[in-house]
This record gives sequence, structure tokens and C-alpha cells, in this order.
Amino acid sequence: MNFQPLTPELLVAFEAIVGPSHLLTAQRAEVAATADAYADYGRDHTEDLHFAPDVVLRPANVEEISQIVRLCHQHRIPVTPRGAGTGLSGGALPVHHGVVLSTERFNKIIEIDERNLQATVEPGVINQVFQEAVQAKGLFYPPDPASKGSCFLGGNLSQSSGGPKAVKYGVTKDYVLNLQVVLPTGDIIWTGANVLKNATGYNLTQLMVGSEGTLGIITRIVFRLIPHPKQDIVLLVPFRDQTQAAAAVSEIFRAGIVPSGMEFMEREAIEWSAHYLSIPLNLPPDITAHLLIELDGNELEQLYKDAELVYGVLEKYDIGEILLADTATQKDELWKIRRNVGNAVRYNSVYKEEDTVVPRAELPTLLKGVKEIGRRYGFTSVCYGHAGDGNLHVNIIRGNLDDTMWHDELPKAIREIFQLCVKLGGTISGEHGIGLVQKPYIGIALGEVQLNLMRGIKTVFDPHGIMNPGKIF
Amino acid sequence: MNFQPLTPELLVAFEAIVGPSHLLTAQRAEVAATADAYADYGRDHTEDLHFAPDVVLRPANVEEISQIVRLCHQHRIPVTPRGAGTGLSGGALPVHHGVVLSTERFNKIIEIDERNLQATVEPGVINQVFQEAVQAKGLFYPPDPASKGSCFLGGNLSQSSGGPKAVKYGVTKDYVLNLQVVLPTGDIIWTGANVLKNATGYNLTQLMVGSEGTLGIITRIVFRLIPHPKQDIVLLVPFRDQTQAAAAVSEIFRAGIVPSGMEFMEREAIEWSAHYLSIPLNLPPDITAHLLIELDGNELEQLYKDAELVYGVLEKYDIGEILLADTATQKDELWKIRRNVGNAVRYNSVYKEEDTVVPRAELPTLLKGVKEIGRRYGFTSVCYGHAGDGNLHVNIIRGNLDDTMWHDELPKAIREIFQLCVKLGGTISGEHGIGLVQKPYIGIALGEVQLNLMRGIKTVFDPHGIMNPGKIF
Repeated sequence: MNFQPLTPELLVAFEAIVGPSHLLTAQRAEVAATADAYADYGRDHTEDLHFAPDVVLRPANVEEISQIVRLCHQHRIPVTPRGAGTGLSGGALPVHHGVVLSTERFNKIIEIDERNLQATVEPGVINQVFQEAVQAKGLFYPPDPASKGSCFLGGNLSQSSGGPKAVKYGVTKDYVLNLQVVLPTGDIIWTGANVLKNATGYNLTQLMVGSEGTLGIITRIVFRLIPHPKQDIVLLVPFRDQTQAAAAVSEIFRAGIVPSGMEFMEREAIEWSAHYLSIPLNLPPDITAHLLIELDGNELEQLYKDAELVYGVLEKYDIGEILLADTATQKDELWKIRRNVGNAVRYNSVYKEEDTVVPRAELPTLLKGVKEIGRRYGFTSVCYGHAGDGNLHVNIIRGNLDDTMWHDELPKAIREIFQLCVKLGGTISGEHGIGLVQKPYIGIALGEVQLNLMRGIKTVFDPHGIMNPGKIF
Repeated sequence: MNFQPLTPELLVAFEAIVGPSHLLTAQRAEVAATADAYADYGRDHTEDLHFAPDVVLRPANVEEISQIVRLCHQHRIPVTPRGAGTGLSGGALPVHHGVVLSTERFNKIIEIDERNLQATVEPGVINQVFQEAVQAKGLFYPPDPASKGSCFLGGNLSQSSGGPKAVKYGVTKDYVLNLQVVLPTGDIIWTGANVLKNATGYNLTQLMVGSEGTLGIITRIVFRLIPHPKQDIVLLVPFRDQTQAAAAVSEIFRAGIVPSGMEFMEREAIEWSAHYLSIPLNLPPDITAHLLIELDGNELEQLYKDAELVYGVLEKYDIGEILLADTATQKDELWKIRRNVGNAVRYNSVYKEEDTVVPRAELPTLLKGVKEIGRRYGFTSVCYGHAGDGNLHVNIIRGNLDDTMWHDELPKAIREIFQLCVKLGGTISGEHGIGLVQKPYIGIALGEVQLNLMRGIKTVFDPHGIMNPGKIF
């Protein structure tokens, strides 16, 4: 990559586009004593990494983005698009410096179209804000990553985020109909049409989703929505044997039940999270894992019937007492514990989060393998995740590990974990993306032929390689 | 495109790869008095079009395909991949002659994995054969185009076929997890992993789906499956006003019902099909259209409740008597009529089928527009399709139209229809693809910037442009 430095002339040009209050530099931040806020644009939720942008721009509309990107294209300036910065693979880090382009001002829900069950939104809308806005109209936008209270929909698209509902309702990609995108050349396009079915040329929409900001900047999104289910109940099932918990997952599906949530939590995950949230918890000492199972539908009576079926499957496993939550308070508390595992781990220690994914029934083998690798290399991991999707988050705790172990030895262990995933028919990221930190491992999942196709596509979209450089491959 | 002629040396090489009984030429067919069968490889279900292949090859496995394609890549020979030839946009027609590569021997269901609710199949498996095999295990593969009794799964993937179930369950693309593909260079790759969520690089799987055989040849497919719903009922609702039928569709969804089928049929569609099938039908003279509504789930009682809600919505429309079908015989007969509309039209006359698609609520406007354009240009159309998806098949009947009208005037009318679709937020193909016959119209849906991205992607995959040339753009 042959990037050019940012010149004073370019800064003047950028300022003319976005206005002085939406162009930030380190210097200005120092003067205004907002250095911390400025530094935040060089971080996300990935470990303790930081890369300083040369300039942060906060454009207000698609035309401003187009003008900025066109200048960067002409002058070979790296552009790192940024949502809320909640990513876990370093996708929003400006590793080649240059421009950080924040979508924070793209925060409008343009339309919720109740006739067509569609919504048009800007990428800087917070996931939960959108969910609540459509729910107020009886509609449902299911993808809900753990960070839903702060993450942006644009970021969700860039990784095709999942979340607990994915097991029944699919991930972000399954709700995207059409995208307005500023290409790395500055051109503005729509990728498709506002329809549920589209057989008109290559699927540019799905190519953009999950491309981690390397092919362009999403400036408007058309989602499909579904009617909101009217009822749900939650079961918390304690297991004495982790591997049994993972095995039960597959069997529940085979009983014909499709839960709307099917989450796995190791003992440590639930303990750390409850402690972090100051929720009192008295786990019997022999419990090593939990499954959190959500059932939803329109009739409560039906959900109790489904729960009976689940109980039937679980009978033969060595479990503790099942907690059935059917009040809003109980359900919220359980989900709050689940959602805060990541925060609790982050609060306790620097950590690396691996986003492993395998076919659902291979989960017990994966879990066993991760623990065995941990024993061999001498690290502790807290494992939890979307068991219904075979998606296990392996949080490797830094704790007292020294620099040699953390920087030199651990990558070998991670490599072994990923090799195991691929061997089991899985891959190295289910919903967090490759970004920066998984880049060294992508060759485990994809061969040179596939990677060359991806590099070729990248060049078609971004001939000068300015858009989120240093990511994926 | 700078294609080279097929040399006798290449024929010898091909014969060495597939064996003499799986290499067909016009000459050999003449000798063997199988000229008709040979000619069929130059046709599909699109109008009355025919293009003669230079040679038809029927390889047995992925290695044979790889060797054939590698030779064609080296020698600049066009390759047209072919499934069952049921396509409606001319996608399987060898317009540049060369090799027709038939996948008919790729007809094995490799595995139905009940632990993971996945199946691995070859592309030459017939859709219905696959559906029935998984249903025998209580599982469900929903995409079911009207031609399901003969079409191949590989062809379904190439257009991302839909069918009546798409309204609730999505289209082909929503069930594809991973693909083995022979690239136009002869390289063999897998596009992804056998997992429900994948954030590992660009989505090559979804790029292949719907690419109409222009980016490679699919040789193996991993599908996800879901538990099969245990019950369904079908309602046939006669309307006195077509526009009201189209309007009712959107309102049923707003009532919170997601039917598993929501089909629209003009009076002529149902009459022609019943006549074609020799099913007696006594439509009252004032009925102009029908909605065929299927509801599915696990409890029959719940379906009757849902039906009550549908009746409630329909009350205010000017409808005839609703037929509720809940026996297998009744339901089969209604679906048989719906599925055979296309065959009935084909039996009556040469026709052009336009695969229009708009946001669901815009269907009445589209239907009115199509009829108005027909009146202006002087053609008859039979309209039917997947109203729940906003996907209306407009069958323009040749009847007594003369050559000038058919070849010179009609394209102008079609252009107007497509322009209306795009104006309404829709596009020019929902599930049939662009292929050959919609190619002149693609500029209505996509601008030069999008088309250049697609052409660029094509070149990355297929630098010599040998794979299904002359299609899409």
C-alpha cells in the first residue's frame, strides 16, 4: 500500500466539507482538553489496542462522505469507517492512521413502513433504539448483539452480527434488503432493491454485509421486519457436566423445538457476570455450566407445551433444578447476566476473545478441545456463547500471563483452537469478523484461491486500497 | 470475447475425461438417431429459443469438471453449465455454442445430518426428491419452485429460486451454508463453512448463489434444514376485484399473520390451469382473481385460529365464498392448479414471462399498470405469482401477435413494465434471473457503477470470460 500523508491543504478541504466542529485532530483535542475523547476514536472493544487517527471526520450526510472519500481516493489517504466502536476484532482501528470517518451523526430512523414491514435507517442508529422503535409498532428486528444498547446498526452490518435470537431468526444479513453505499471511489450506489426476493445480477448487498468496511461505507439501510412474537419464557438449566450441556443443545432441536435463544455459559461466565452486576447468586458447588433457553410465540399456553418437550429431553441429563422465568423482571435479570458476561470479563482482565463456530452438534468436542489446549499452554478461558448456532466465545484471560506468553505463545494456542474449528466443519469467526486481530489466522479457514478471489473483489471496489486498510487479509 | 473453435484434439481430450458415452455431438446424435434428445441440450423453458452446443459433456465428478473447465480456460472455449433446463430466462442456453456441461450425473444426496439439521447434496438432485428425502426424517427444505418435480437444486441456486413457501421461509439463498465450486480456471474451492453464522471474509457463498452459472460450477451444496411443520391448511379466496385481492395481501401481514403461502392468480390463470389439468371448475362469472393462502404450524387448532384472523381481515373486501381445504386431497388439488399455471400457459401459446417484483403493498399499483400497458400495446397477459413477496409473474401471450409486434413493439412494453417496478421500489427479476432474455433491460434496475462492479467481479473469477458467456450483462 502506497499511502500518502495528510497535507494541510487536505485538512482545509475536509474542514470545508464537514465544518470546523466536526473535524478533530490530536492538536485541537489538546487545546480543547478533550484528548481522552479524541483518543477514543483510536480504540474499540478489542483488547487494549490503540492506533491514533490523523484526523477524525464526522460528516452529516451521504454527499459529505462521498466528497471526503473521493478526496482520499485521489490522494491515497487511508479511511477507516467507524460506528460505535464496540467491535471485538479491531475492525474500526485506524491501523494505517489517516482519516477516521465516524458515522455517529447518521442516527436517524428514516421510515418504518408498516404497509411493507420494512424500515429505512441510517447506520449510526443504535441497535436497541431501532428495536424499540419497531416494537412500538408491533414489529420485530431480531438481531441483538450483547452490545445492543450502544452498538450501531452500521457496525452490525459490517460484521453481520448475530446475538441470541439468531438461532431462530437468523443474523443481520438475513434482514438486509438494500443498502446505500459510498464506494471507495466516492461513487454513491444502491446495492439492490426494496424487495424480499431479488434475482437481478450479483448479490452486492450480501457482499457488502460482513465486508468489515473494506468495500465502502454504508450510509442507508433498508431492513425487512417481521411481526413481533407476543410471548416468551426463559429457562435456566444448570448442568453438572459442561459437555452434557453442549450435547443437550443438539438434542433439543432434534425434538422439533426451535428456541428463540439457546445460550451456553460456563460456571465462571455466569459467576463473573452476576458479581459484576452485584446480583446475588448461590450456585451449588457441583454446577459447571448453564443453558439459557428462550421460547417465543404468540400463545403462552403453547410455550408451556414446548417447555414440557424441553424438560422431556433434559430428563436424562445430570442437571440441577431448572429455573423457569415468565415474569418480565425474572427474564430481564437472566438476560442481563448473559449480556454482561463480556463486560464482566473485560472488567476483570485484559482478554482475547475468540469467536469460534462449528456445526451445532460438534460443540462438546470443541469445548473439550479448547480446555485441553488451555491446560497444555497454561491459560484460563471463560467460555460462553450462542450454543444453538454452534458459536462459542472463548475468552482467554490475560490475568498474570507474562508478555512472552501473551504475545508469543498464545498465538500458537489460538492457532490450534482455530484448526480444531475448521477440522470440525466450522470456521474462525461466527459474528465478530476477522478485522485486525484474527487476520494472522485467516489462512486456517481459507486457502490462497479463496483469498485471491477476495483480494480481487477488494481491488474492483477499491483500486487504491484506501478503505479500512490492514483488515481481513 | 475472443472465443476459439472447438478442435478435434480438444474433443479427444474431453472424451478421455468423461468417457465416450458421456460426450455427445450433433454428428453422433444423428448417427444414433437421438437428434431430438441432443437438441434438447440447446433449449430450456424460455419461449421457443434454441442454440446448438458444439458438444455436450456429462461429467461424473468434480475432478472431471475441473479438468474440462481447465482445458476450456486454456483454450478459450465457452462453457454453459446446465441443470434440468427448466429455467425461464434462458440462463442455460449456449448462446456462444462451445461446451454444454450437464450436471445430470451429480444426482446424489450425500448426507442428511440429523444431528446438525444439515444436508450435503450434489447439484443434479431434483428439488422434490430432496424435499421428500428430508421430510421422511421430519425435516424441511422449504424452497419449492413450481417446477420442483423436475428442476435441479443446482439450477435453483443459480437463480436463488423462490416458490410459494418463500413468503414465510425465504428463498434458496437462505438455506445455503457452503458450496463446493469449480472456478472458471478449473480450481476447486469451498466458499464457506458448514455453520449457521460466518463472519470470516467476504460472503463468497452468497456471491455464487444467484450468479447464474457465470462465476463457476457448483458441484456440492451444504444446506441448513429446519424441523418440518406438522400441519397446514389452505384457503382459496375468490375476489370480484383484482386490485382488492392484491391489497388484501398486505393487510393480512399487518394483522400479524405470516402465511406459509400467499399466492395470487388472475381468473385466466386458474381457468387455464384447471382446463389443462382437466379439473372441472365452476367459477362465478364475476370473480376476477383468487388468493391461495396456506397457513402452517404444529397445532391444527392454532391454524384454525389464524384462519379466523384472516377471515376477519377479508370481511371488508368484496369476495365470494372462501374454500377451506384441510384434507390432503383438497390441498393437493389446489396447489396442483397453482403449480400448473405456467405449464398451462405454455401449452396454450408461446409466451414471455416477466418476473416482476415490488414491495408487497405496491402490488395493486403494479397489476393495474401492467394491464394498462397491455391495453395500450394490444397484448393479453395472464398474471399470477407470489403475492406475499410482491413477486408477480406477468405472462405475455403470443397468441395471434405478428412478428413485428412480438419482436419490435413488445420490448418497449416490457421496458415500461420494468420501469414501473423500479419506480415502485422493486426490480426486474425476483426469482427467474436475468439470463439471456432480460439482459437488455438490466440497465433499468442497475446503473453503470453497479454493473461495472459486477463486471469486475466476473473478471476476477473468470479472466477469459468463458463461463456461461452472454448472460446477465
